Amino acid sequence: MTVMVRAIIRPEKSAEVMKALLDAGYPAVTKIEVFGRGKQQGLKVGNVVYDELHKDCLLIVVPEAEKMLVIRTILNTARTGTEGQHGDGKIFVSPVEDVYTISTGAKESAEKPNLVTA
Amino acid sequence: MTVMVRAIIRPEKSAEVMKALLDAGYPAVTKIEVFGRGKQQGLKVGNVVYDELHKDCLLIVVPEAEKMLVIRTILNTARTGTEGQHGDGKIFVSPVEDVYTISTGAKESAEKPNLVTA
Amino acid sequence: MTVMVRAIIRPEKSAEVMKALLDAGYPAVTKIEVFGRGKQQGLKVGNVVYDELHKDCLLIVVPEAEKMLVIRTILNTARTGTEGQHGDGKIFVSPVEDVYTISTGAKESAEKPNLVTA
Repeated sequence: MTVMVRAIIRPEKSAEVMKALLDAGYPAVTKIEVFGRGKQQGLKVGNVVYDELHKDCLLIVVPEAEKMLVIRTILNTARTGTEGQHGDGKIFVSPVEDVYTISTGAKESAEKPNLVTA
Repeated sequence: MTVMVRAIIRPEKSAEVMKALLDAGYPAVTKIEVFGRGKQQGLKVGNVVYDELHKDCLLIVVPEAEKMLVIRTILNTARTGTEGQHGDGKIFVSPVEDVYTISTGAKESAEKPNLVTA
Repeated sequence: MTVMVRAIIRPEKSAEVMKALLDAGYPAVTKIEVFGRGKQQGLKVGNVVYDELHKDCLLIVVPEAEKMLVIRTILNTARTGTEGQHGDGKIFVSPVEDVYTISTGAKESAEKPNLVTA
């Protein structure tokens, strides 16, 4: 089985997270600039204000057996300080049925989808 | 079970849809600016012209049991007028296996993934 | 069953791929501008340099029975030259549980999700 790990993180943490993923053996990452709305962040005027803040969404496709390594790498680097704080983001893991590499036209086996980079 | 509800909507409807999601108890939303191609939209020159128009893609991760509340909230607010029209967009629901909150490092239970915001 | 085909391709190939999808009967496509990191691309300074390059991510939702037609259409048009080269991108296929059309409020059957465009 193959999975997509989707991490929504602070943009100022992207470089560090992507470096850590590379060092952990995961060069292939897709990054999307998104907006996240969080209850605890942004300007508070009067009572409560919810706003949208820039986030980066990182997509990493890996064998299911390796997902915890990817998740731990992200958790360790995307957190603010040692305690973490609201707005540090989320990680979602979802199933991927098939992976193809366009340059070769080959369908990848579930064991090594991250080895041939995008 | 947890699901990701992905709504591709008109950008001019985003604020209203996100307000309705907040009021319905879903503060945590990720928004992505995308382009959508639709058969029925855009300039028609001569015979048929298909073009790409700005859309917003909203991602909301919720327990499967709550997906209909989220879907109905989006359907009720993203439609144009009372009749709706082509180009109002689509909603796709897909499975999510795991959810982690980066600030705490905790794996969320399937019951409450939307309670800790991104 | 319905699936989402997600292709991460060179932006300079997008127009050709989207034209081919249209000709193959798939007008409805969502395009997202993303960044991809690949081992083999970009500037190499000294030893090894990994960088991020612009890519386009195309999303096409179709019945599972039609996924190979969509995949082959993308493979045939997104490749560089006849040989292909690193950086041409990847295709990921993932499951979709439900599809709704916002204009009508209708849940689509698994057989025809691409027929009503976004």
